[in-house]
Amino acid sequence: MTLETLSTVRSHGGTQGVYRHASTTTGTDMTFAVFVPEHEPGAKLPVLWYLSGLTCTHANVMEKGEYRAACAGHGVIFVAPDTSPRGEGVPDDPEGAWDFGLGAGFYVDATEEPWAKHYRMRSYVEDELPSLVLRNFASADLTRQAISGHSMGGHGALTIGLRNQDRFRSVSAFSPIVSPLHCPWGEKALGHYLGDDREEWRAYDACALLDDGLRVPDLLVDQGDADNFLTEQLKTELLVAACERNGQNAEIRMQPGYDHSYYFISTFMAEHVAWHAERLKA
Amino acid sequence: MTLETLSTVRSHGGTQGVYRHASTTTGTDMTFAVFVPEHEPGAKLPVLWYLSGLTCTHANVMEKGEYRAACAGHGVIFVAPDTSPRGEGVPDDPEGAWDFGLGAGFYVDATEEPWAKHYRMRSYVEDELPSLVLRNFASADLTRQAISGHSMGGHGALTIGLRNQDRFRSVSAFSPIVSPLHCPWGEKALGHYLGDDREEWRAYDACALLDDGLRVPDLLVDQGDADNFLTEQLKTELLVAACERNGQNAEIRMQPGYDHSYYFISTFMAEHVAWHAERLKA
Repeated sequence: MTLETLSTVRSHGGTQGVYRHASTTTGTDMTFAVFVPEHEPGAKLPVLWYLSGLTCTHANVMEKGEYRAACAGHGVIFVAPDTSPRGEGVPDDPEGAWDFGLGAGFYVDATEEPWAKHYRMRSYVEDELPSLVLRNFASADLTRQAISGHSMGGHGALTIGLRNQDRFRSVSAFSPIVSPLHCPWGEKALGHYLGDDREEWRAYDACALLDDGLRVPDLLVDQGDADNFLTEQLKTELLVAACERNGQNAEIRMQPGYDHSYYFISTFMAEHVAWHAERLKA
Repeated sequence: MTLETLSTVRSHGGTQGVYRHASTTTGTDMTFAVFVPEHEPGAKLPVLWYLSGLTCTHANVMEKGEYRAACAGHGVIFVAPDTSPRGEGVPDDPEGAWDFGLGAGFYVDATEEPWAKHYRMRSYVEDELPSLVLRNFASADLTRQAISGHSMGGHGALTIGLRNQDRFRSVSAFSPIVSPLHCPWGEKALGHYLGDDREEWRAYDACALLDDGLRVPDLLVDQGDADNFLTEQLKTELLVAACERNGQNAEIRMQPGYDHSYYFISTFMAEHVAWHAERLKA
Protein backbone atom coordinates (compact mmCIF):
# COMPACT_ATOMS: atom_id res chain seq x y z
CA MET A 1 0.00 0.00 0.00
CA THR A 2 2.34 2.70 -1.25
CA LEU A 3 1.14 6.25 -0.95
CA GLU A 4 2.23 8.85 -3.47
CA THR A 5 2.18 12.47 -2.32
CA LEU A 6 0.82 14.62 -5.14
CA SER A 7 1.03 17.91 -3.24
CA THR A 8 1.32 19.38 0.22
CA VAL A 9 0.74 23.00 1.11
CA ARG A 10 0.76 24.87 4.39
CA SER A 11 -2.63 26.25 5.35
CA HIS A 12 -4.12 27.47 8.61
CA GLY A 13 -0.97 26.32 10.37
CA GLY A 14 -1.34 22.70 9.23
CA THR A 15 -0.69 20.69 6.10
CA GLN A 16 -3.20 20.18 3.29
CA GLY A 17 -2.06 17.19 1.28
CA VAL A 18 -3.30 15.31 -1.77
CA TYR A 19 -2.33 11.67 -2.11
CA ARG A 20 -2.72 8.85 -4.63
CA HIS A 21 -2.48 5.11 -4.27
CA ALA A 22 -3.26 1.98 -6.24
CA SER A 23 -6.45 0.73 -4.63
CA THR A 24 -6.84 -3.03 -4.34
CA THR A 25 -10.55 -2.49 -3.65
CA THR A 26 -11.47 -0.53 -6.77
CA GLY A 27 -8.67 -1.85 -8.97
CA THR A 28 -7.80 1.74 -9.91
CA ASP A 29 -5.63 4.56 -8.69
CA MET A 30 -7.50 6.57 -6.09
CA THR A 31 -6.81 10.15 -5.01
CA PHE A 32 -7.78 11.68 -1.67
CA ALA A 33 -7.09 14.79 0.42
CA VAL A 34 -6.00 14.98 4.06
CA PHE A 35 -5.64 18.05 6.26
CA VAL A 36 -3.47 17.54 9.33
CA PRO A 37 -3.52 20.46 11.80
CA GLU A 38 -0.35 21.66 13.44
CA HIS A 39 0.23 19.51 16.51
CA GLU A 40 2.80 18.57 19.13
CA PRO A 41 5.17 15.76 18.11
CA GLY A 42 3.60 12.44 19.03
CA ALA A 43 0.11 13.93 19.50
CA LYS A 44 -2.86 11.85 18.35
CA LEU A 45 -5.73 13.65 16.62
CA PRO A 46 -9.25 12.44 15.89
CA VAL A 47 -10.32 11.95 12.27
CA LEU A 48 -13.34 13.46 10.53
CA TRP A 49 -14.26 11.84 7.21
CA TYR A 50 -16.05 13.93 4.61
CA LEU A 51 -17.77 12.26 1.66
CA SER A 52 -18.52 14.47 -1.32
CA GLY A 53 -21.54 14.69 -3.60
CA LEU A 54 -22.31 13.91 -7.22
CA THR A 55 -19.71 15.11 -9.77
CA CYS A 56 -17.17 15.98 -7.06
CA THR A 57 -13.64 14.79 -6.43
CA HIS A 58 -11.57 15.29 -3.27
CA ALA A 59 -10.87 18.81 -4.54
CA ASN A 60 -14.26 20.51 -4.19
CA VAL A 61 -14.42 20.52 -0.41
CA MET A 62 -10.66 21.09 -0.22
CA GLU A 63 -11.03 24.33 -2.15
CA LYS A 64 -14.46 25.55 -1.08
CA GLY A 65 -15.35 23.77 2.17
CA GLU A 66 -13.77 26.23 4.63
CA TYR A 67 -13.00 23.44 7.11
CA ARG A 68 -9.34 24.14 7.78
CA ALA A 69 -9.73 27.00 10.25
CA ALA A 70 -12.13 24.92 12.35
CA CYS A 71 -10.10 21.72 12.09
CA ALA A 72 -6.95 23.62 13.08
CA GLY A 73 -8.76 25.18 16.01
CA HIS A 74 -10.13 21.88 17.30
CA GLY A 75 -7.20 19.65 16.31
CA VAL A 76 -9.16 17.41 13.96
CA ILE A 77 -7.74 15.60 10.90
CA PHE A 78 -10.01 15.94 7.84
CA VAL A 79 -10.02 13.22 5.16
CA ALA A 80 -11.81 13.70 1.83
CA PRO A 81 -11.95 10.72 -0.57
CA ASP A 82 -12.99 10.80 -4.21
CA THR A 83 -16.57 9.88 -5.14
CA SER A 84 -15.92 7.01 -7.53
CA PRO A 85 -13.19 4.97 -9.19
CA ARG A 86 -11.75 6.66 -12.28
CA GLY A 87 -9.39 5.80 -15.10
CA GLU A 88 -8.99 3.46 -18.01
CA GLY A 89 -11.46 0.61 -18.01
CA VAL A 90 -13.85 2.16 -15.50
CA PRO A 91 -17.31 2.21 -17.10
CA ASP A 92 -19.34 5.42 -17.01
CA ASP A 93 -22.99 6.26 -17.53
CA PRO A 94 -23.73 5.14 -21.12
CA GLU A 95 -25.23 8.54 -21.86
CA GLY A 96 -22.62 10.49 -19.94
CA ALA A 97 -25.12 11.70 -17.35
CA TRP A 98 -23.59 13.33 -14.26
CA ASP A 99 -25.77 11.47 -11.76
CA PHE A 100 -24.36 8.00 -12.33
CA GLY A 101 -21.01 6.35 -13.01
CA LEU A 102 -17.88 8.50 -12.75
CA GLY A 103 -18.23 10.92 -9.85
CA ALA A 104 -21.28 9.04 -8.63
CA GLY A 105 -20.18 5.87 -6.85
CA PHE A 106 -22.94 6.28 -4.24
CA TYR A 107 -20.71 4.59 -1.62
CA VAL A 108 -21.97 1.12 -2.56
CA ASP A 109 -20.26 -2.16 -3.49
CA ALA A 110 -21.80 -2.85 -6.89
CA THR A 111 -22.94 -6.40 -7.60
CA GLU A 112 -24.10 -5.97 -11.19
CA GLU A 113 -21.97 -5.94 -14.32
CA PRO A 114 -20.22 -3.99 -15.70
CA TRP A 115 -20.03 -2.06 -12.42
CA ALA A 116 -19.02 -4.73 -9.91
CA LYS A 117 -15.35 -4.83 -10.79
CA HIS A 118 -14.48 -1.20 -9.94
CA TYR A 119 -17.45 0.44 -8.21
CA ARG A 120 -16.71 -0.64 -4.65
CA MET A 121 -16.74 2.66 -2.79
CA ARG A 122 -18.37 1.12 0.31
CA SER A 123 -15.44 -1.19 0.97
CA TYR A 124 -13.00 1.49 -0.11
CA VAL A 125 -14.27 3.99 2.46
CA GLU A 126 -15.09 1.45 5.17
CA ASP A 127 -11.94 -0.69 4.96
CA GLU A 128 -9.11 0.18 2.62
CA LEU A 129 -8.81 3.93 3.10
CA PRO A 130 -8.93 3.87 6.94
CA SER A 131 -6.24 1.23 6.89
CA LEU A 132 -4.15 3.35 4.56
CA VAL A 133 -4.62 6.45 6.72
CA LEU A 134 -3.67 4.49 9.83
CA ARG A 135 -0.42 3.32 8.27
CA ASN A 136 0.60 6.59 6.69
CA PHE A 137 -0.53 9.35 9.09
CA ALA A 138 1.13 8.83 12.43
CA SER A 139 -0.98 11.48 14.14
CA ALA A 140 -4.33 9.91 13.15
CA ASP A 141 -6.15 8.38 16.13
CA LEU A 142 -8.59 5.95 14.50
CA THR A 143 -10.18 5.12 17.85
CA ARG A 144 -11.80 8.55 17.49
CA GLN A 145 -13.61 8.93 14.19
CA ALA A 146 -16.58 10.88 12.91
CA ILE A 147 -18.12 11.12 9.45
CA SER A 148 -19.90 13.78 7.45
CA GLY A 149 -20.80 14.43 3.84
CA HIS A 150 -22.83 16.38 1.34
CA SER A 151 -25.76 15.23 -0.80
CA MET A 152 -24.72 11.81 -2.19
CA GLY A 153 -21.91 12.04 0.35
CA GLY A 154 -24.44 12.80 3.07
CA HIS A 155 -26.13 9.56 2.07
CA GLY A 156 -22.71 7.91 2.30
CA ALA A 157 -22.06 9.36 5.76
CA LEU A 158 -25.48 8.31 7.06
CA THR A 159 -25.36 4.76 5.71
CA ILE A 160 -21.70 4.10 6.53
CA GLY A 161 -22.27 5.65 9.95
CA LEU A 162 -25.31 3.45 10.60
CA ARG A 163 -23.59 0.26 9.46
CA ASN A 164 -20.48 1.03 11.56
CA GLN A 165 -21.85 2.42 14.78
CA ASP A 166 -18.85 1.20 16.76
CA ARG A 167 -16.47 3.15 14.54
CA PHE A 168 -18.03 6.62 14.38
CA ARG A 169 -18.84 8.60 17.49
CA SER A 170 -20.87 11.10 15.52
CA VAL A 171 -22.43 11.46 12.08
CA SER A 172 -23.44 14.64 10.30
CA ALA A 173 -24.63 15.58 6.85
CA PHE A 174 -25.25 18.58 4.64
CA SER A 175 -28.33 18.24 2.41
CA PRO A 176 -28.14 14.43 2.29
CA ILE A 177 -30.00 12.04 0.03
CA VAL A 178 -31.85 10.32 2.87
CA SER A 179 -33.60 7.51 1.01
CA PRO A 180 -32.28 6.26 -2.35
CA LEU A 181 -35.27 3.88 -2.39
CA HIS A 182 -37.48 6.92 -2.80
CA CYS A 183 -35.79 9.29 -5.22
CA PRO A 184 -34.77 9.28 -8.89
CA TRP A 185 -31.02 9.61 -8.23
CA GLY A 186 -31.13 6.66 -5.86
CA GLU A 187 -33.34 4.50 -8.03
CA LYS A 188 -31.10 5.00 -11.02
CA ALA A 189 -27.85 4.38 -9.16
CA LEU A 190 -28.90 1.45 -6.99
CA GLY A 191 -30.82 -0.13 -9.85
CA HIS A 192 -27.68 -0.19 -11.97
CA TYR A 193 -25.17 -1.01 -9.24
CA LEU A 194 -27.27 -3.54 -7.29
CA GLY A 195 -29.95 -4.80 -9.66
CA ASP A 196 -33.70 -4.96 -9.42
CA ASP A 197 -34.14 -6.59 -6.02
CA ARG A 198 -34.93 -3.58 -3.88
CA GLU A 199 -34.42 -5.59 -0.70
CA GLU A 200 -30.70 -5.45 -1.55
CA TRP A 201 -30.90 -1.68 -1.56
CA ARG A 202 -31.85 -1.40 2.12
CA ALA A 203 -28.20 -1.57 3.23
CA TYR A 204 -27.73 1.67 1.29
CA ASP A 205 -30.79 3.56 2.49
CA ALA A 206 -30.49 5.52 5.74
CA CYS A 207 -34.22 5.42 6.47
CA ALA A 208 -34.41 1.67 5.82
CA LEU A 209 -31.35 1.04 8.01
CA LEU A 210 -33.02 2.96 10.84
CA ASP A 211 -36.19 0.88 10.37
CA ASP A 212 -34.03 -2.23 10.36
CA GLY A 213 -32.73 -1.35 13.81
CA LEU A 214 -29.41 0.35 13.17
CA ARG A 215 -28.49 3.55 15.03
CA VAL A 216 -25.77 6.18 15.22
CA PRO A 217 -24.54 7.66 18.52
CA ASP A 218 -25.49 11.19 17.51
CA LEU A 219 -26.72 12.84 14.32
CA LEU A 220 -26.66 16.42 13.00
CA VAL A 221 -28.16 17.38 9.62
CA ASP A 222 -28.38 20.78 7.93
CA GLN A 223 -30.61 21.27 4.91
CA GLY A 224 -31.27 24.48 3.01
CA ASP A 225 -34.92 25.18 2.32
CA ALA A 226 -34.04 26.90 -1.00
CA ASP A 227 -32.27 23.75 -2.24
CA ASN A 228 -33.53 22.90 -5.75
CA PHE A 229 -33.16 19.17 -5.05
CA LEU A 230 -35.05 19.12 -1.76
CA THR A 231 -38.49 18.08 -2.95
CA GLU A 232 -37.67 15.49 -5.57
CA GLN A 233 -34.35 14.00 -4.47
CA LEU A 234 -33.41 14.76 -0.88
CA LYS A 235 -36.73 14.49 0.98
CA THR A 236 -35.41 15.43 4.40
CA GLU A 237 -38.85 14.78 5.87
CA LEU A 238 -38.37 11.04 5.35
CA LEU A 239 -35.30 11.13 7.62
CA VAL A 240 -37.11 13.21 10.22
CA ALA A 241 -39.92 10.64 10.28
CA ALA A 242 -37.54 7.66 10.34
CA CYS A 243 -35.60 9.15 13.27
CA GLU A 244 -38.81 9.88 15.15
CA ARG A 245 -40.40 6.46 14.70
CA ASN A 246 -37.17 4.69 15.57
CA GLY A 247 -36.07 6.82 18.50
CA GLN A 248 -32.86 7.95 16.76
CA ASN A 249 -31.33 10.91 18.54
CA ALA A 250 -31.00 13.59 15.84
CA GLU A 251 -30.89 17.31 15.23
CA ILE A 252 -32.20 18.00 11.72
CA ARG A 253 -32.25 21.68 10.87
CA MET A 254 -33.92 23.42 7.96
CA GLN A 255 -31.82 26.48 7.11
CA PRO A 256 -33.90 29.25 5.55
CA GLY A 257 -32.73 30.65 2.23
CA TYR A 258 -29.80 28.29 1.66
CA ASP A 259 -29.28 26.27 -1.50
CA HIS A 260 -27.33 23.08 -2.32
CA SER A 261 -23.93 24.67 -2.96
CA TYR A 262 -20.65 25.05 -1.13
CA TYR A 263 -21.82 28.55 -0.17
CA PHE A 264 -24.26 26.68 2.07
CA ILE A 265 -21.86 23.95 3.20
CA SER A 266 -19.12 26.43 4.11
CA THR A 267 -21.59 28.44 6.17
CA PHE A 268 -22.22 25.55 8.55
CA MET A 269 -18.93 23.65 8.22
CA ALA A 270 -17.30 25.22 11.28
CA GLU A 271 -20.33 24.32 13.37
CA HIS A 272 -20.22 20.72 12.18
CA VAL A 273 -16.51 20.44 12.90
CA ALA A 274 -17.05 21.87 16.41
CA TRP A 275 -19.97 19.50 17.00
CA HIS A 276 -17.91 16.49 15.99
CA ALA A 277 -14.87 17.70 17.94
CA GLU A 278 -16.94 17.86 21.11
CA ARG A 279 -17.87 14.20 20.63
CA LEU A 280 -14.34 13.18 19.64
CA LYS A 281 -12.63 14.35 22.82
CA ALA A 282 -10.27 11.74 24.20
CA MET B 1 -25.29 52.39 -15.37
CA THR B 2 -27.58 49.38 -15.31
CA LEU B 3 -26.51 46.47 -13.17
CA GLU B 4 -27.40 42.93 -14.16
CA THR B 5 -27.56 40.37 -11.38
CA LEU B 6 -25.97 37.13 -12.60
CA SER B 7 -26.47 35.22 -9.35
CA THR B 8 -27.15 35.64 -5.67
CA VAL B 9 -26.77 32.96 -3.06
CA ARG B 10 -27.18 32.95 0.70
CA SER B 11 -23.93 32.32 2.56
CA HIS B 12 -22.81 32.93 6.14
CA GLY B 13 -26.11 34.71 6.75
CA GLY B 14 -25.52 37.29 4.02
CA THR B 15 -25.78 37.47 0.26
CA GLN B 16 -22.99 36.61 -2.16
CA GLY B 17 -23.85 38.15 -5.50
CA VAL B 18 -22.25 38.31 -8.92
CA TYR B 19 -23.08 41.27 -11.13
CA ARG B 20 -22.36 42.48 -14.65
CA HIS B 21 -22.52 45.91 -16.24
CA ALA B 22 -21.48 47.68 -19.39
CA SER B 23 -18.43 49.64 -18.29
CA THR B 24 -17.96 53.05 -19.86
CA THR B 25 -14.36 53.02 -18.62
CA THR B 26 -13.18 49.80 -20.25
CA GLY B 27 -15.71 49.78 -23.07
CA THR B 28 -16.57 46.19 -22.21
CA ASP B 29 -18.93 44.28 -19.99
CA MET B 30 -17.40 43.88 -16.55
CA THR B 31 -18.28 41.29 -13.92
CA PHE B 32 -17.71 41.63 -10.19
CA ALA B 33 -18.69 39.96 -6.91
CA VAL B 34 -20.15 41.57 -3.78
CA PHE B 35 -20.82 39.98 -0.40
CA VAL B 36 -23.27 41.88 1.77
CA PRO B 37 -23.55 40.59 5.35
CA GLU B 38 -26.91 40.27 7.04
CA HIS B 39 -27.76 43.64 8.55
CA GLU B 40 -30.54 45.68 10.07
CA PRO B 41 -32.72 47.54 7.57
CA GLY B 42 -31.15 50.92 6.89
CA ALA B 43 -27.79 49.97 8.38
CA LYS B 44 -24.66 51.28 6.66
CA LEU B 45 -21.68 48.94 6.36
CA PRO B 46 -18.06 49.73 5.48
CA VAL B 47 -16.62 48.38 2.24
CA LEU B 48 -13.47 46.28 1.79
CA TRP B 49 -12.18 46.08 -1.78
CA TYR B 50 -10.19 43.02 -2.80
CA LEU B 51 -8.13 43.05 -5.99
CA SER B 52 -7.13 39.67 -7.40
CA GLY B 53 -3.91 38.44 -8.94
CA LEU B 54 -2.74 37.34 -12.38
CA THR B 55 -5.11 34.95 -14.25
CA CYS B 56 -7.93 35.49 -11.73
CA THR B 57 -11.46 36.74 -12.16
CA HIS B 58 -13.87 37.81 -9.39
CA ALA B 59 -14.52 34.10 -8.81
CA ASN B 60 -11.24 32.89 -7.31
CA VAL B 61 -11.47 34.76 -4.04
CA MET B 62 -15.24 34.27 -3.98
CA GLU B 63 -14.78 30.50 -3.99
CA LYS B 64 -11.51 30.06 -2.11
CA GLY B 65 -10.89 33.23 -0.11
CA GLU B 66 -12.79 32.29 3.07
CA TYR B 67 -13.73 35.92 3.74
CA ARG B 68 -17.46 35.55 4.30
CA ALA B 69 -17.41 34.31 7.89
CA ALA B 70 -15.17 37.22 8.92
CA CYS B 71 -17.08 39.82 6.89
CA ALA B 72 -20.36 38.56 8.36
CA GLY B 73 -18.91 38.71 11.86
CA HIS B 74 -17.59 42.25 11.47
CA GLY B 75 -20.34 43.62 9.23
CA VAL B 76 -18.10 44.44 6.28
CA ILE B 77 -19.14 44.46 2.61
CA PHE B 78 -16.58 42.71 0.36
CA VAL B 79 -16.23 43.75 -3.30
CA ALA B 80 -14.11 41.73 -5.75
CA PRO B 81 -13.64 43.13 -9.28
CA ASP B 82 -12.24 41.28 -12.26
CA THR B 83 -8.55 41.71 -13.16
CA SER B 84 -8.89 43.00 -16.72
CA PRO B 85 -11.37 43.87 -19.44
CA ARG B 86 -12.53 40.85 -21.43
CA GLY B 87 -14.58 40.14 -24.51
CA GLU B 88 -14.63 40.73 -28.21
CA GLY B 89 -12.06 43.27 -29.38
CA VAL B 90 -9.98 43.21 -26.20
CA PRO B 91 -6.38 42.48 -27.22
CA ASP B 92 -4.47 39.78 -25.35
CA ASP B 93 -0.81 38.90 -25.00
CA PRO B 94 0.35 38.12 -28.56
CA GLU B 95 1.82 34.84 -27.37
CA GLY B 96 -1.05 34.03 -25.02
CA ALA B 97 1.14 34.32 -21.92
CA TRP B 98 -0.75 34.38 -18.61
CA ASP B 99 1.22 37.30 -17.14
CA PHE B 100 -0.03 39.98 -19.51
CA GLY B 101 -3.25 40.99 -21.25
CA LEU B 102 -6.44 39.17 -20.28
CA GLY B 103 -6.45 38.50 -16.54
CA ALA B 104 -3.48 40.84 -16.12
CA GLY B 105 -4.68 44.43 -16.26
CA PHE B 106 -2.22 45.46 -13.53
CA TYR B 107 -4.65 48.15 -12.33
CA VAL B 108 -3.22 50.73 -14.73
CA ASP B 109 -4.73 53.08 -17.33
CA ALA B 110 -2.83 52.05 -20.45
CA THR B 111 -1.53 54.80 -22.70
CA GLU B 112 -0.03 52.69 -25.46
CA GLU B 113 -1.84 51.06 -28.38
CA PRO B 114 -3.47 48.62 -28.77
CA TRP B 115 -4.04 48.56 -24.99
CA ALA B 116 -5.23 52.10 -24.26
CA LYS B 117 -8.80 51.64 -25.44
CA HIS B 118 -9.86 48.89 -22.99
CA TYR B 119 -7.12 48.42 -20.40
CA ARG B 120 -8.19 51.10 -17.94
CA MET B 121 -8.44 49.16 -14.69
CA ARG B 122 -7.08 52.08 -12.63
CA SER B 123 -10.01 54.32 -13.50
CA TYR B 124 -12.40 51.39 -13.34
CA VAL B 125 -11.46 50.53 -9.76
CA GLU B 126 -10.86 54.11 -8.61
CA ASP B 127 -13.91 55.77 -10.16
CA GLU B 128 -16.51 53.79 -12.04
CA LEU B 129 -16.96 50.77 -9.79
CA PRO B 130 -17.23 52.71 -6.51
CA SER B 131 -19.85 54.90 -8.13
CA LEU B 132 -21.73 51.85 -9.31
CA VAL B 133 -21.56 50.25 -5.86
CA LEU B 134 -22.78 53.44 -4.24
CA ARG B 135 -25.81 53.62 -6.52
CA ASN B 136 -26.77 49.96 -6.33
CA PHE B 137 -25.96 48.79 -2.81
CA ALA B 138 -27.95 50.86 -0.35
CA SER B 139 -26.09 49.47 2.66
CA ALA B 140 -22.63 50.43 1.36
CA ASP B 141 -21.06 53.26 3.35
CA LEU B 142 -18.41 54.64 1.01
CA THR B 143 -17.17 57.07 3.64
CA ARG B 144 -15.59 53.98 5.20
CA GLN B 145 -13.46 52.05 2.72
CA ALA B 146 -10.44 49.80 2.88
CA ILE B 147 -8.55 47.92 0.19
CA SER B 148 -6.64 44.66 -0.05
CA GLY B 149 -5.42 42.33 -2.74
CA HIS B 150 -3.19 39.45 -3.72
CA SER B 151 -0.01 39.49 -5.83
CA MET B 152 -0.79 41.73 -8.83
CA GLY B 153 -3.88 42.70 -6.81
CA GLY B 154 -1.66 43.46 -3.83
CA HIS B 155 0.21 45.83 -6.14
CA GLY B 156 -3.17 47.27 -7.09
CA ALA B 157 -4.20 47.72 -3.46
CA LEU B 158 -0.92 49.38 -2.52
CA THR B 159 -0.80 51.77 -5.45
CA ILE B 160 -4.50 52.67 -5.44
CA GLY B 161 -4.33 53.03 -1.67
CA LEU B 162 -1.31 55.33 -1.88
CA ARG B 163 -2.81 57.49 -4.62
CA ASN B 164 -6.14 57.79 -2.75
CA GLN B 165 -5.16 58.22 0.85
CA ASP B 166 -8.30 60.17 1.66
CA ARG B 167 -10.49 57.31 0.44
CA PHE B 168 -9.04 54.26 2.19
CA ARG B 169 -8.59 54.12 5.94
CA SER B 170 -6.44 51.02 5.69
CA VAL B 171 -4.54 49.04 3.07
CA SER B 172 -3.44 45.44 3.21
CA ALA B 173 -1.94 42.94 0.82
CA PHE B 174 -1.16 39.26 0.47
CA SER B 175 2.14 38.53 -1.32
CA PRO B 176 2.07 41.77 -3.32
CA ILE B 177 4.21 42.78 -6.26
CA VAL B 178 5.80 45.73 -4.48
CA SER B 179 7.81 47.30 -7.29
CA PRO B 180 6.87 46.68 -10.96
CA LEU B 181 9.91 48.81 -11.86
CA HIS B 182 12.09 46.03 -10.48
CA CYS B 183 10.57 42.72 -11.55
CA PRO B 184 9.94 40.88 -14.84
CA TRP B 185 6.13 40.81 -14.47
CA GLY B 186 6.07 44.55 -13.88
CA GLU B 187 8.56 45.42 -16.60
CA LYS B 188 6.63 43.44 -19.18
CA ALA B 189 3.22 44.81 -18.20
CA LEU B 190 4.12 48.46 -17.67
CA GLY B 191 6.37 48.44 -20.73
CA HIS B 192 3.46 47.38 -22.90
CA TYR B 193 0.71 49.38 -21.21
CA LEU B 194 2.67 52.59 -20.57
CA GLY B 195 5.60 52.58 -22.97
CA ASP B 196 9.32 52.94 -22.46
CA ASP B 197 9.45 56.06 -20.28
CA ARG B 198 9.94 54.53 -16.88
CA GLU B 199 9.15 57.84 -15.17
CA GLU B 200 5.53 57.19 -16.22
CA TRP B 201 5.63 53.91 -14.33
CA ARG B 202 6.20 55.53 -10.95
CA ALA B 203 2.47 56.14 -10.43
CA TYR B 204 2.11 52.33 -10.54
CA ASP B 205 4.97 51.39 -8.26
CA ALA B 206 4.28 51.28 -4.51
CA CYS B 207 7.92 51.83 -3.56
CA ALA B 208 8.28 54.76 -5.96
CA LEU B 209 5.03 56.31 -4.69
CA LEU B 210 6.34 56.11 -1.13
CA ASP B 211 9.60 57.74 -2.24
CA ASP B 212 7.54 60.39 -4.01
CA GLY B 213 5.87 61.31 -0.74
CA LEU B 214 2.58 59.43 -0.78
CA ARG B 215 1.42 57.56 2.32
CA VAL B 216 -1.39 55.28 3.51
CA PRO B 217 -3.00 55.61 6.95
CA ASP B 218 -2.06 52.06 7.93
CA LEU B 219 -0.55 49.07 6.12
CA LEU B 220 -0.55 45.31 6.74
CA VAL B 221 1.25 42.84 4.45
CA ASP B 222 1.54 39.07 4.71
CA GLN B 223 4.07 37.21 2.57
CA GLY B 224 4.82 33.48 2.61
CA ASP B 225 8.49 32.63 2.72
CA ALA B 226 7.93 29.47 0.63
CA ASP B 227 6.38 31.55 -2.17
CA ASN B 228 8.02 30.59 -5.50
CA PHE B 229 7.67 34.15 -6.78
CA LEU B 230 9.22 35.87 -3.78
CA THR B 231 12.79 36.28 -4.96
CA GLU B 232 12.31 37.20 -8.61
CA GLN B 233 8.94 38.96 -8.72
CA LEU B 234 7.60 40.05 -5.34
CA LYS B 235 10.74 41.30 -3.55
CA THR B 236 9.06 42.15 -0.27
CA GLU B 237 12.33 43.52 1.03
CA LEU B 238 12.01 46.51 -1.31
CA LEU B 239 8.74 47.48 0.37
CA VAL B 240 10.21 47.01 3.84
CA ALA B 241 13.06 49.34 2.90
CA ALA B 242 10.76 51.90 1.24
CA CYS B 243 8.49 52.01 4.32
CA GLU B 244 11.48 52.40 6.61
CA ARG B 245 13.21 55.16 4.70
CA ASN B 246 9.94 57.06 4.23
CA GLY B 247 8.50 56.63 7.70
CA GLN B 248 5.46 54.72 6.44
CA ASN B 249 3.67 52.98 9.29
CA ALA B 250 3.53 49.31 8.25
CA GLU B 251 3.39 45.77 9.55
CA ILE B 252 5.03 43.48 6.98
CA ARG B 253 5.07 39.84 8.09
CA MET B 254 6.98 36.93 6.60
CA GLN B 255 4.90 33.82 7.17
CA PRO B 256 7.05 30.69 7.41
CA GLY B 257 6.18 27.78 5.15
CA TYR B 258 3.42 29.48 3.18
CA ASP B 259 3.26 29.64 -0.61
CA HIS B 260 1.50 31.95 -3.10
CA SER B 261 -1.86 30.15 -3.21
CA TYR B 262 -5.32 30.65 -1.78
CA TYR B 263 -4.35 28.11 0.90
CA PHE B 264 -2.11 30.92 2.16
CA ILE B 265 -4.53 33.78 1.55
CA SER B 266 -7.42 32.01 3.27
CA THR B 267 -5.23 31.35 6.30
CA PHE B 268 -4.77 35.06 7.00
CA MET B 269 -7.95 36.46 5.42
CA ALA B 270 -9.94 36.55 8.67
CA GLU B 271 -7.10 38.46 10.33
CA HIS B 272 -6.99 41.01 7.51
CA VAL B 273 -10.75 41.50 7.62
CA ALA B 274 -10.62 42.01 11.40
CA TRP B 275 -7.71 44.44 11.05
CA HIS B 276 -9.58 46.50 8.46
CA ALA B 277 -12.84 46.32 10.43
CA GLU B 278 -11.10 47.81 13.47
CA ARG B 279 -10.04 50.78 11.33
CA LEU B 280 -13.42 51.07 9.60
CA LYS B 281 -15.47 51.58 12.74
CA ALA B 282 -17.91 54.44 12.38
